[in-house]
Amino acid sequence: MRTEEHFLKTQESLDPADWAETRKLAHQMMDDMLDYMASIRERPAWSPIPEDIRETFSTPLPHQPEGAEPVYEEFKQTILAYPLGDIHPRFFSWVNGPGSAAGMLASMLANTMNPNSGGANHAANLVEQQVINWCKEFLDFPENASGVLTSGGSMANLIALAVARHWAAKRAGVNVRKEGMQSFAQRLRLYCSSETHSSVQRALETLGMGSDSLCAIPVNANFQLDPEALVAAIKADREAGILPFCIVGTSGTTNTGSIDPLDTLADICAREQLWFHVDGAIGAVAALAPEIKPKLKGIERADSIAFDMHKWLFMNYAVGCVLVRNADLHRETFSLTPAYLKHAPRGAASGDLWFSEMSIELTREFRALKIWMLLKEFGSAKFGRMMLQTMTLAAYLAEQIDRAPQLERLAPAPLHIVVFRYVDPALSAEALNKLNAEIVMEIQESGIAVPGTTTIHGKTAIRACINNYRTRHEDLDMLLQAVVSTGQALTQH
Amino acid sequence: MRTEEHFLKTQESLDPADWAETRKLAHQMMDDMLDYMASIRERPAWSPIPEDIRETFSTPLPHQPEGAEPVYEEFKQTILAYPLGDIHPRFFSWVNGPGSAAGMLASMLANTMNPNSGGANHAANLVEQQVINWCKEFLDFPENASGVLTSGGSMANLIALAVARHWAAKRAGVNVRKEGMQSFAQRLRLYCSSETHSSVQRALETLGMGSDSLCAIPVNANFQLDPEALVAAIKADREAGILPFCIVGTSGTTNTGSIDPLDTLADICAREQLWFHVDGAIGAVAALAPEIKPKLKGIERADSIAFDMHKWLFMNYAVGCVLVRNADLHRETFSLTPAYLKHAPRGAASGDLWFSEMSIELTREFRALKIWMLLKEFGSAKFGRMMLQTMTLAAYLAEQIDRAPQLERLAPAPLHIVVFRYVDPALSAEALNKLNAEIVMEIQESGIAVPGTTTIHGKTAIRACINNYRTRHEDLDMLLQAVVSTGQALTQH
Repeated sequence: MRTEEHFLKTQESLDPADWAETRKLAHQMMDDMLDYMASIRERPAWSPIPEDIRETFSTPLPHQPEGAEPVYEEFKQTILAYPLGDIHPRFFSWVNGPGSAAGMLASMLANTMNPNSGGANHAANLVEQQVINWCKEFLDFPENASGVLTSGGSMANLIALAVARHWAAKRAGVNVRKEGMQSFAQRLRLYCSSETHSSVQRALETLGMGSDSLCAIPVNANFQLDPEALVAAIKADREAGILPFCIVGTSGTTNTGSIDPLDTLADICAREQLWFHVDGAIGAVAALAPEIKPKLKGIERADSIAFDMHKWLFMNYAVGCVLVRNADLHRETFSLTPAYLKHAPRGAASGDLWFSEMSIELTREFRALKIWMLLKEFGSAKFGRMMLQTMTLAAYLAEQIDRAPQLERLAPAPLHIVVFRYVDPALSAEALNKLNAEIVMEIQESGIAVPGTTTIHGKTAIRACINNYRTRHEDLDMLLQAVVSTGQALTQH
Repeated sequence: MRTEEHFLKTQESLDPADWAETRKLAHQMMDDMLDYMASIRERPAWSPIPEDIRETFSTPLPHQPEGAEPVYEEFKQTILAYPLGDIHPRFFSWVNGPGSAAGMLASMLANTMNPNSGGANHAANLVEQQVINWCKEFLDFPENASGVLTSGGSMANLIALAVARHWAAKRAGVNVRKEGMQSFAQRLRLYCSSETHSSVQRALETLGMGSDSLCAIPVNANFQLDPEALVAAIKADREAGILPFCIVGTSGTTNTGSIDPLDTLADICAREQLWFHVDGAIGAVAALAPEIKPKLKGIERADSIAFDMHKWLFMNYAVGCVLVRNADLHRETFSLTPAYLKHAPRGAASGDLWFSEMSIELTREFRALKIWMLLKEFGSAKFGRMMLQTMTLAAYLAEQIDRAPQLERLAPAPLHIVVFRYVDPALSAEALNKLNAEIVMEIQESGIAVPGTTTIHGKTAIRACINNYRTRHEDLDMLLQAVVSTGQALTQH
C-alpha cells in the first residue's frame, strides 16, 4: 500500500509528533495551575490590563505555527495575569463561582473523552441523568420529572419558559411549534417580582412574547414579591382580555438574595391554573443545606425550576440545570429527530437519553462529569456546609456595616449578598451615588478587592456577594476598611 | 481574633487540605489521559454498556465523601471505558470533532482561571474578541462586524435568526423585543433548502415564528438549493400576503456535505431585500483551506454566519461562533443591562466587550482560549490542510465504494461526508433499508467502527463522516470490509 505509507509520513494531526514532549509541557502546566490556585490569595484581586498587553491581542490570524511552549508563555504573561478575579477570596462583584482544583481536573477528564452529550448510548449521558436525578432528590421533585444540564441559568429559564409557553398554547388550542405566537388570540402574561433577574425578560423576548408580556409585581420591604398585588394584577389582566399563563418565583434575587414566598405562589398558581416556574439560579442549590432548605419551601411544587451549579455549588463554568415536572411536555416542546438523528434499537444510536430532545442545543459538551465527581468526592453535605459558611460570613459583614457610622446597609441579607453604601451627611443624594461608584472603582483598581455596584431604591449600592469557599472574615474586614478609607479620602478634597 | 482562628480551623473548602496529595493524583490523571489519547486506536470504537455498569448510575445522592481516588477509579471503570467514541479514528457516525490533547490542555488552563466571560474588563474577553476577529479575517467579513462564541451551531443559528427577526420587525414598524411576534400584521417566512439542518427549524420554533414560517425549497441532484424554485416561492408568498424576511444558505449540509450556491443566494437577497444567513456549522471553517475556500464563494456577503469550531476545526466541545455584519443591530437585539450589570467607566466592570449583550447567555465560560492557543500553536494553515486531508480520504472512500459491486453510493461527496449502502438485487426496497440499518448496528456493536445512518431519497444510507485527523486509509478499508462482510453474512441466512 504505497498510498498508505506516503499518507502516514505526511499525515497532518493534532496528536503530537512526540508525546513525551507534550507530556512534559502538560505536567508543567498542571504544576503551574495548581500553584496558581494554591497561591491565589497572594495576588491582587483584579488588575487593569496595561496598554502594551492589550495591544498584543490585535495581531492577525497566525498562519504559521508558533509552537506550544511560546504560546503557553504568552498565555501566562498576557492572559493568566489579567483575570476577572472570580476565584480570588476577595472577589465580591457578582455571584460568580470560584470553581476548584477538583473541578478543573474533572473538566480535564471530560475534555479528554470529549463526547457529544446530545444523545446516543454512552456513559456520559448516564452521568448526566444521574446528576439530574440527584437534583430532583435534593429538591423533592418527583422521580419521573425530566431535566437537562444547560450552560447556565439564562438557558435554563429559556427552556423552562418555552415549555410553559407550549403548555399554555395547548390549553389555548394553539400549536405554537408549528404556528408560532401569532396564532394566539390573546396576549400572554407572565408575573414575577420587580427584582426578578433580567434573563426572564430576555427569555420572553427570545420566545417572541415580548417584554410587554412580563408583569413586574412590586416587592415588600424584604424585596419579596407581594402576593396581594399579584392576585390583583392577574384579575385585572383577565378582565382586560389578557391570558395569564405563568408565575415566576425567585429563590435568591440578584440584588439582595431575597426569596419570594414560594409556597404562597404555588397556591396561587394552583388556584389560577398557571404554570409555576422558580428561578433558583442562585438559591435552589441551597436545598442541600438542611439549615437553609426550609426557606425554599414551595419550590418542590414548581412546574419547572432553573438553577445554576456554577454559582453557589462552586462548579467550574459553565453549568446550570432545568427540571420540568411533566417530562412528556418537556420532550414535546423540543423533540425534533431528522433522519441523521434517528434513534436506533441497538448500537451507538440507541438509548433513551437524547438530551437534544430536552434542550435547544444539539451538540452538547459533557457538563455533568464535574458535578458527578465532586458530589461523590466531597459528599453533598459539604456543599451545604459551604453555602451556610458564606451566609455566616455575610451575616458578619452585615453586622460590621451596621456598627460602622460611615456605612449604611440598604437591604436585609437573607442569603450571602450584602448591599450597603458609604454615607456622608454633607453630600447630596446624587453626590453620594457618584461617591459610592467611585469608591468601588478605586478599590478594584487598588487590587484589594472586587466589590460591585447595583441600585437599591435609587441609591447606588456597594454589592458584596460572598460566593467563595476561600473567603474569610479578614477578607471582609479588608473590604470594609477599604470602603471607609477610600470614602474618607475622596470626601476630603 | 478568636472568631477568625476558630473559623480557619473549621473552614470548609474545596481547596485540598493537602495540595501535595492532589498534585500527585492530578499528575496521575494527566498521564492516564495522555496515554488514553495516544492509544485510542487500540481500543474498540464503541462498546455497549454492560447492565451491571449501567446500574451503578442509579445510586442516590452521595451525602458523605467517597474520596478523590476511589471516585477517579470508578470514573475509569464506568465512564472512561464506555465513551461515545468521537475521538476514535473509526468514529464516522456524525460530524463530531475529536478534540485533541492540546485542546484538553487549553481547557485545563481556562478552567483554572474560570472567568465569567459574559462581560467586564479582563483578558478572557480580549481573547474572545481576537478569535472573533480572526474568524472575520478568514471569512472576509468586514472588520466592524460583531460576533460571539456560542455552545455550538444551534445557538449560533438561534442568535443570528433573532437578529434577523429584529431587523425584519424594525422594517415592519414592530418593536419585537417589547411587543413580541403578535404585533406583526403579516406572517413571516424564511427560505432554506430541504437539506437544511434541523436547528434552523428549532430556532424558528423557539423565536415564536413557528415551523410554518420555514419554507423548504427543493434541491437539485447535488443536494443544493434550487434558486429558481426559491424565487418562485418568494413571489408566491408575497402575492399571498406573507412577509419574506430571510434566506438561509448552507455551506456543508448534514446529510451529504453539499454547499448551496451562496453567491446566487446573496444576489437574490440583495434584490429581494432579505436577510442572508449562512449556516456554515460544518463548512464555514473550511475557508481556512485555500483549496476549499472558493467553494464557499458568497459567504462573505452574508448578513450573518453561524459555524462550529468543535466540528471540522477539531476544537474540544463545545464551541461555535456567530458573526453579524451589522454590529449595532446585533447589540440592539440582545442588550439588556440591569443595575447589577451596569458598565463602569473604570475598574473591573468597565470595557466594551460585554458579550452578554450579543447573546442569550449572561454567564459565559471561557470558550475562546482553546481556539486562541491552538491556532497560534499549530498555525491556521495546518487546520486547512487537515480539512483537506479528510476530504482526500472521503474521495478515497467514495472511489472504493464505486468500485465495489455490493455497494452503492447515494450522493456526491463534495466535502468529507460519504453516504452509501449495501445492495443485494434479491431484496426489496424495504428489506434493503432494514438490512443497512442492521449492518450499521452490528458494526457498531463489534467495536470495529461507528458508521451512522441517514435517509437519502427514502433509502436508508450508511453515513460516514470523516472528521478526525487520526483517520487513515486503513480505517476506511476496515469500514468497507465490515460493511460488505456483515451484509453478506446477514443475507446468507
